[in-house]
Amino acid sequence: MTYGDAMNGRARREARRAEIVRAALEVIAERGYRGASMAAVAERVGLTQQGLLHHFPTKDALLVAVLEERDQWDAVPDTPWRVDLLTSLVEYNAMRPGIVQTFSALLGESVTEGHPARGYFTERYTRVRETMTTALRAAYGDRLPNGLTPERTAPLLVAVMDGLQYQWLLDPDAVDMPGAFRDFLRLLGEETGRGDGG
Amino acid sequence: MTYGDAMNGRARREARRAEIVRAALEVIAERGYRGASMAAVAERVGLTQQGLLHHFPTKDALLVAVLEERDQWDAVPDTPWRVDLLTSLVEYNAMRPGIVQTFSALLGESVTEGHPARGYFTERYTRVRETMTTALRAAYGDRLPNGLTPERTAPLLVAVMDGLQYQWLLDPDAVDMPGAFRDFLRLLGEETGRGDGG
Repeated sequence: MTYGDAMNGRARREARRAEIVRAALEVIAERGYRGASMAAVAERVGLTQQGLLHHFPTKDALLVAVLEERDQWDAVPDTPWRVDLLTSLVEYNAMRPGIVQTFSALLGESVTEGHPARGYFTERYTRVRETMTTALRAAYGDRLPNGLTPERTAPLLVAVMDGLQYQWLLDPDAVDMPGAFRDFLRLLGEETGRGDGG
Repeated sequence: MTYGDAMNGRARREARRAEIVRAALEVIAERGYRGASMAAVAERVGLTQQGLLHHFPTKDALLVAVLEERDQWDAVPDTPWRVDLLTSLVEYNAMRPGIVQTFSALLGESVTEGHPARGYFTERYTRVRETMTTALRAAYGDRLPNGLTPERTAPLLVAVMDGLQYQWLLDPDAVDMPGAFRDFLRLLGEETGRGDGG
């Protein structure tokens, strides 16, 4: 096997893995993680179950890859979060209902007993609250215009983003997710430069 | 059968139904609805599956009873919601992690394809946004102190309540759910009379 063959083999494996993760995201969006089967994922990418197990030996291993995908999705490498970028993230999410559905379904399941994503979400929220606290402090200092500290505002910011996703997924015509999120930033004292607040 | 016997029979049936619904709430909190089995519910109340089917002929029929229970839980009959009562509701919820877990798990699942609770949650959120709009208008008139209308504040209020529940269920020691909710009411301009905002 030449060096070029080995690289092609690795590239093909990587491409196939990415394809499997995309299929898993879809199956979880449709059925949740507990309702998802390895057979359904295998079928979607045209693999036998044995072929799928070659890439991901267990359903939990596939979940880990799905959650890593999630981390890449809303992180900008080596760039601290800025409050004004959050609106762009919410606008971006509003164009990707499928992936929002996957992670809203996983978040919901994660609070049930012994769920394999529970540790991931617990740690993720700890980290996201800290990240948001830092971003809020960079934007506003130790007090926001409304009087709250960054520490006490961060859980509200995260809660609004998650809660709006459920309302929007259930009824996209009734809920303007980016508009509602801009309203929330306005409550914090942010100048969002759109709408008149009414 | 005497009138008294009939009444006792009905009372016993009602008590047994309530016991089954409580067991179903627990099983859904632990496994989600898709992961819940009629067998697990039957076992928890000491019934055979056949005995359970006598009360609830299908799993979906049991889900309907569970969702009706949810409606009773946060409704005060014939009393319009008041903004200042919401803090009490959140404090009450913070004492009942089990039932919050049941409905957070169900909400998460409801966004997946063809979920039997999807219609329920979609209609519920439409209604709750309207109810909250009315409550906010009664408290503040057509503009809140922060400048938003009641219509635009209502989805944020609902989102914060839902989003905080997930953070709190995942990490109850890290998230003071009632305190965070009071912070949010303070953003709206409400005098909550506790804490100093910092």
